[in-house]
Amino acid sequence: MRQAGRYLPEYQKLRQKHTFVEMCTFPDLAVEVSLQPYRRFGFDAVIVFYDILFLAAAMGAPLEFTDQGPVFRQPIRRRPEVESLRQPDLESLEPAVGTGAILESLRRIRAEVPDGTSVLGFAGAPFTVASYLVEGSFQRSGDRIKRLLHEDPELVHGLLEKLASVTGEYLAAQVAAGADAVQLFDTWAGLLGAADFREFALPYQKAVLDRVAQTGAPTILYVKGGAHLLGELAKSGASVLSLDWRQSLPEVRRTLGAGIGLQGNLDPASLFAPPETVKQKVAALLDSMQRDPGYILNLGHGILPETPLASVEALVETVRNRE
Amino acid sequence: MRQAGRYLPEYQKLRQKHTFVEMCTFPDLAVEVSLQPYRRFGFDAVIVFYDILFLAAAMGAPLEFTDQGPVFRQPIRRRPEVESLRQPDLESLEPAVGTGAILESLRRIRAEVPDGTSVLGFAGAPFTVASYLVEGSFQRSGDRIKRLLHEDPELVHGLLEKLASVTGEYLAAQVAAGADAVQLFDTWAGLLGAADFREFALPYQKAVLDRVAQTGAPTILYVKGGAHLLGELAKSGASVLSLDWRQSLPEVRRTLGAGIGLQGNLDPASLFAPPETVKQKVAALLDSMQRDPGYILNLGHGILPETPLASVEALVETVRNRE
Repeated sequence: MRQAGRYLPEYQKLRQKHTFVEMCTFPDLAVEVSLQPYRRFGFDAVIVFYDILFLAAAMGAPLEFTDQGPVFRQPIRRRPEVESLRQPDLESLEPAVGTGAILESLRRIRAEVPDGTSVLGFAGAPFTVASYLVEGSFQRSGDRIKRLLHEDPELVHGLLEKLASVTGEYLAAQVAAGADAVQLFDTWAGLLGAADFREFALPYQKAVLDRVAQTGAPTILYVKGGAHLLGELAKSGASVLSLDWRQSLPEVRRTLGAGIGLQGNLDPASLFAPPETVKQKVAALLDSMQRDPGYILNLGHGILPETPLASVEALVETVRNRE
Repeated sequence: MRQAGRYLPEYQKLRQKHTFVEMCTFPDLAVEVSLQPYRRFGFDAVIVFYDILFLAAAMGAPLEFTDQGPVFRQPIRRRPEVESLRQPDLESLEPAVGTGAILESLRRIRAEVPDGTSVLGFAGAPFTVASYLVEGSFQRSGDRIKRLLHEDPELVHGLLEKLASVTGEYLAAQVAAGADAVQLFDTWAGLLGAADFREFALPYQKAVLDRVAQTGAPTILYVKGGAHLLGELAKSGASVLSLDWRQSLPEVRRTLGAGIGLQGNLDPASLFAPPETVKQKVAALLDSMQRDPGYILNLGHGILPETPLASVEALVETVRNRE
């Protein structure tokens, strides 16, 4: 889950001088921002700083970051718009053409941190990236993408296939550049019922994850609000499922058995409780997983702006004290 | 689930001359709009046209409806703001003071439609109304209300208690005015994990539903994205659970047994498929519930703008052909 960002004063300081896009796409800045939480808190892994939507931008979809979030001003809802998406040049440092920045950042981060510290890359899963492309400006409901699934399923499949093929290569390139593992974020796939998920999300997750599996790197799949999709998620081929705060991890372990890693799932909002309460919540989560060897403690979603640093420290301290 | 609204040409025609607030709070208009879908499609029930947030407006929270949805310009995040919410005058027709419009509309609708047609009232559940009040302008994540649960749980409990007490009386008044059953919408409670749900949503749902139970009217509880809360929802005291499109109704029936009604859960987005596909989906849903006597076919969320009328007709026709 996102480690860096607005809650860190050292990030805010850099951010005053640079746009969000610069922070992601200038490797000097992205490497610095990626390492900030690692330096401050000593996490076990470093997550490269980037955004899942830059891959679509590199395919030719003009992307802006506004105060209301990312916006594609030319939403993709018709065939010519799908066809206009082109193959990105993964190594190009120009964000409108390629994704070289994240690859360069990964190389530098891998060279910077010790072998025992994992470096994580990531990408958006096809359904989630398609959701942003179709919605244009993503609101809470995903009504536009869901509507399009029913109005023109073939168009959506065409878009998803294109994204899946590119995303698989993109993540494989991240592994080649130094990522020890990669995360696939299908954040919005939880908006789908199981039948639609099996048609529009799962096959494309599998296609991407199968491509990454050829590299040998482990994969982590995240879906927000996917409690109703657990059986499906287990079939994705991911090495690890990253779950949001709404699911009971011990129940998930009982349901899925020992063959899959589980990551999560402290509610990011709970970091606004006093540090002593945070410690109790983290301890309770660790207790509930009873030294499960396939468990990775993490938040259940990205860390929120204004999260108190003392809470993150309380979290890290509680985990460290158990080791 | 919402029946009236933007997808109906007869609604659009009235809406050109009146604001949304007028459509809800002038009983002449609200009754007309409530009856429009009943007249066009012959539904088994008529849902009064109103908005869940008018109750908070009647308690003194200034409410606006914008293109981006409802907005409380003075969000409630501190104690004096909670204390400033006052007891509404339920019978007052002035929206800044009371909720007389919905009561008057219910009386007129009950007088207008035959006994065999049910008239449904509704309200927002305390957690969901509190979410709007705390967020101010509700975005997809509910981060503000969730943050406040952890920062100042006592403040949130104070707000929820106040809302629960008023909402119970409000729904009882709706029953007295002619509602045959009432729906309690806890749309956003699905954002909570089970422990937070048990603390911040369930007790206040119960308080409201217990008050309505004194009137003898049946109650319907809706939570969006509540697949992880099924056991909790069954303890709410609701006569019927209304479920979104993400849950498998036959599985829910197996889990909960026969003692509770189930309503739902066609994906509103699926109405954008061709009418023949809609018929197949509705038939499959009816088949899956095998003439379950406690089952009410409905959408899994409110009907979307621009929904084709032919799809709604296909839905109604498919249900009618089974009767």
